[in-house]
Amino acid sequence: MSNDQQTKYLLSEAELPTHWYNLNADLGALGVELAPVLNPETHEPAGAGALEAIFPEPLVQQEMGTERHVAIPEAVRDVYRLWRPTPLYRARRWEEKLGTPAKIFYKYEGVSPTGSHKPNTSVPQAYFNAESGTTRLTTETGAGQWGSALSFAAQMYDLDCEVYMVRISYEQKPYRRVMMETWGATVTPSPSEKTQAGRDVLADDPDTSGSLGIAISEAVERAAQDEATKYALGSVLNHVLLHQTVIGQEVTKQLAQAGAGEPDVLVGCTGGGSNFAGFFYPFLERHVDGDAPLPRIVAVEPTATPTLTKGHFEYDFGDTARMTPMMKMHTLGHDFVPPPIHSGGLRYHGMSPQISALLDAGIIEATSTPQIPMFESCEEFVRCEGLLPAPEAGHAVWGARNEALTAREAGEERTIVFNLCGHGHFDLSAYEGFRAGELEDFALPEDEIEESLAAVPDVA
Amino acid sequence: MSNDQQTKYLLSEAELPTHWYNLNADLGALGVELAPVLNPETHEPAGAGALEAIFPEPLVQQEMGTERHVAIPEAVRDVYRLWRPTPLYRARRWEEKLGTPAKIFYKYEGVSPTGSHKPNTSVPQAYFNAESGTTRLTTETGAGQWGSALSFAAQMYDLDCEVYMVRISYEQKPYRRVMMETWGATVTPSPSEKTQAGRDVLADDPDTSGSLGIAISEAVERAAQDEATKYALGSVLNHVLLHQTVIGQEVTKQLAQAGAGEPDVLVGCTGGGSNFAGFFYPFLERHVDGDAPLPRIVAVEPTATPTLTKGHFEYDFGDTARMTPMMKMHTLGHDFVPPPIHSGGLRYHGMSPQISALLDAGIIEATSTPQIPMFESCEEFVRCEGLLPAPEAGHAVWGARNEALTAREAGEERTIVFNLCGHGHFDLSAYEGFRAGELEDFALPEDEIEESLAAVPDVA
Repeated sequence: MSNDQQTKYLLSEAELPTHWYNLNADLGALGVELAPVLNPETHEPAGAGALEAIFPEPLVQQEMGTERHVAIPEAVRDVYRLWRPTPLYRARRWEEKLGTPAKIFYKYEGVSPTGSHKPNTSVPQAYFNAESGTTRLTTETGAGQWGSALSFAAQMYDLDCEVYMVRISYEQKPYRRVMMETWGATVTPSPSEKTQAGRDVLADDPDTSGSLGIAISEAVERAAQDEATKYALGSVLNHVLLHQTVIGQEVTKQLAQAGAGEPDVLVGCTGGGSNFAGFFYPFLERHVDGDAPLPRIVAVEPTATPTLTKGHFEYDFGDTARMTPMMKMHTLGHDFVPPPIHSGGLRYHGMSPQISALLDAGIIEATSTPQIPMFESCEEFVRCEGLLPAPEAGHAVWGARNEALTAREAGEERTIVFNLCGHGHFDLSAYEGFRAGELEDFALPEDEIEESLAAVPDVA
Repeated sequence: MSNDQQTKYLLSEAELPTHWYNLNADLGALGVELAPVLNPETHEPAGAGALEAIFPEPLVQQEMGTERHVAIPEAVRDVYRLWRPTPLYRARRWEEKLGTPAKIFYKYEGVSPTGSHKPNTSVPQAYFNAESGTTRLTTETGAGQWGSALSFAAQMYDLDCEVYMVRISYEQKPYRRVMMETWGATVTPSPSEKTQAGRDVLADDPDTSGSLGIAISEAVERAAQDEATKYALGSVLNHVLLHQTVIGQEVTKQLAQAGAGEPDVLVGCTGGGSNFAGFFYPFLERHVDGDAPLPRIVAVEPTATPTLTKGHFEYDFGDTARMTPMMKMHTLGHDFVPPPIHSGGLRYHGMSPQISALLDAGIIEATSTPQIPMFESCEEFVRCEGLLPAPEAGHAVWGARNEALTAREAGEERTIVFNLCGHGHFDLSAYEGFRAGELEDFALPEDEIEESLAAVPDVA
C-alpha cells in the first residue's frame, strides 16, 4: 500500500506520552503573563490554600507549578492504554468533496470509553485523589459528558463518585445517567436535599429544573464538608489543560509519521478550553524550542456563547454564586445565561485563563459560528468520513471546512489539522432537530452582551 | 514498556486483509456437507437464478462459489481503512477481577462508524451492487443496526438507500433513524403504502406496529420490481459470512503479535451467525492447512431464542411469509415469535446454514444464557474494561466469563478469545431496564418450542 492511500496514523502503546507538557513553564518565552487568581472577597492573590479545600495537594501543585514536564504516573498510563494513543485520520474523502488542495487531518478522541477527550483528565484526577487519601469525588454535570468521564475514572481507582446532574437533564436524558450508574457512580438530580445550597433553592422553588451553577455549588459544598471528599472540574483550570496535552504530543508524532511537514493551521472548539489547549500546546513547546514555526491556531466557539470573540478579558468569578476564586479570563459575565443551543459543553460564560491570555497576546485567533452551518458541516463530514461528531466537536469541523475553502480560493496546498474531540452518539436528538429544520441560529445581540458584562466586578 | 502491560494489539493499514476466506472451499476437508438451497414451491434445488432477482451477480457468485480466497477490491479496502484493522484487547483488569489464571482477549468491532461489525459486509455489498449497475439498495431494519450499516455503505458508493424500519422502532427509537438519514438514506416506517405487501397489511390492520417479517417482504418486493434496485441482507447467507472473515484474519495476526500462542477457546454471540463466523472461520482455515489444532469454538445465544441449542436442523423458510428459498439450518420454525428481549440482533428464528452444519458436525458448540446474567456480566466488564457492550455482544462477554471461571476451577492458564461485535451506545434503555430490575429472564418452555417447530415443512 502506498502512503497515498493511508487513512489512519496509529501509534503503538510504547509511544504513549510519558509526561504532560506544562505551558506555565513557557509563558515567559512566549511573552505571555498569567494574572494571579484572586480571593473573591479581598481581591488579594489567593494562595494554594484556597484550592486545597476542594482539590488534593498534587493537583494544586500542578495548577500552580512551573515545572515544564510533569511525569505521568504508570498507573495513569495503564488506564490511558485502554484507548490511547488515539488515531489521527487524513480526511481524504472530505478533501475531495470540498475540492480543496489542502490536506485535512483530524485527531479523533471519540475512541475513549466515554466517547470524548474528558477521561484524559478525569483519570489522573481520580488517581491523584486516590493517592492523597480521597475516598469520594463529587462533580456536576449537564448533559453528562464530564460526569461519565469522572464516573469511569473513579471506578478505575476504587473511589466513590457522586455526580450532581442538572435536574432537567436527569429527567430528559436518562442514557448518560444510566452510563454513569453502570460505572458505579451515584447520580443525584440537582438541586437536591443533600446540600444546603440545594435545600435553599428547593425551599424557594420546589419545581425548579436546576442549573449547572446550582449543581456546581452542591458538588463543591459536599467536597468542602469532609476531608476525604474532593471536587473535580472538567475544564478551565491549568491542571486540567495540562493533562490534555497527551493529545497534541501524539499529533506531532503522527503528523511526522504521515510525512505531513509542519501544519499551517490548527483548529479546535472551545468551551472551557481544555480539548483545544491539549491539542495545540505541544506545538507551542516545539516553537519555543526553535524546532518549528508557529502555525495559525484557531479557536471556534458558538455565536450563542461568544466568550473569546465578544467577551471581555477581565477578572470574573467562575460560578454564578460568586463562590470561586476570581480569575482573569475572557468572560461574558458570571450570570450570563446562554441560549439553549445543542452544544452543552460550550455554554460556559468564561474561558480558561491560559487560553484567554494567549488570545490577548495574539498567539491564537478566535472565530464563531451559529449552530445551523455547524450541523451542515457535520452532515457533510459524516457522509464523507463516516464518524459522527458531537455538536461541540462540530465547531472544529466547521472551522476546518472554512480553512479548506480558503485554501481552495488561494489555490494553496495547506495542511489543516483539527481536533475531533468526541462522537455524537448521545446527541442524535440535536441532529434530529437540525434535520427537521427546528433549530434556531442564535447570534447574541450586542446589548445583551453588554448587559451581561455589566455584572463583571471591578478589580483594580 | 514490557509486553506484560500491553493492552491493545494494533495492526497497521498495510496489514489489512487482501482476501476474504471462503469456508465453502474447506467444507469437504472438515467433513461437512452443505445441503442445497431449495425452491420453496417445488422443493427442488434452486439455482443461481432464484437469487439473481434480488442480488447482483458477483454476490450470487460469492454465495455459491468454492474459490478459497476471494480478493477484496481496492475500493472496498479503501473504505475499510476508515476503521480497520480493529484492535484486539487483552482484558487485564477483568482477568484480575475474576481471579482467573486464564488470559482473556477480545476483538473490538465497535470502532466502525456505525458501531458494529455490520459494515464489514454492507460496504462490499454496496460496492458490488454499484459495480453491477444497481442504483438503489433496499433493506429492512428493526432496531437499526443493519440499516445504519447499509446507509453508510450506500453513501460511500453514491447509491440510494431505502430502509424499511419496523414501525414501532421507527416511532420509539428515533436516533438510529436520524443516523441513517444523516448518511443520506430514506427511512420508511413499515408497513407502508409503497408496496403491495405493506398495503395488504395496512388494509387489514391500519394501526399495526409492524414486524421484521413484513419489513423484509416490503424491501424484497421493491427490489424485485426494478432491475436497478437490489436487496441487501445483513447475516445468514454465505456471502455475508465470507465478508466478515476480515475479523478473524486480523485476530490470528494479533494473537501472534501478543505472543499468545494458540487459543484454547473462541467465543462469539449468534443471531444469524455472521459476526461469529467471521471471527472463527480463519482458525478453521489454519486447522485445515495443518498449521494449528482446532480450538473449542463456542456460540452463545439467548435462552429466549435458542436456535442452536433447542432448534431442529431442518429445511425451513427464511421468512414468515414463506417467500424465500428454503435452507437447511437450525430453526425454531419460520413463524416463531421471539419474546421481547433486549438483543434485537439475536431474535431471528433461523441460523446461517454454514454455522448450522458446523454444529451438526460437532466442530462447534453452542450454549445459551438468559438476559439478566448477560447484563450482569456486561456491568462487571464495563467496570473493568471501560467499553460498553451491545446486549448482543454481551452474550459473548457472558460466555467468555464462563470459560474464565471454568479455567479458574481447573487451575489452568487457558487462552480465551471472544468477539465484542459492537458497542451499546444505542442500547442504554436496555441497561436502564436491567439496573431498574425491570427485565425478565425468558427461557422458552419446551412445549412452545415444539409448537413453533411443528410449522417447519416436511422435506423429503
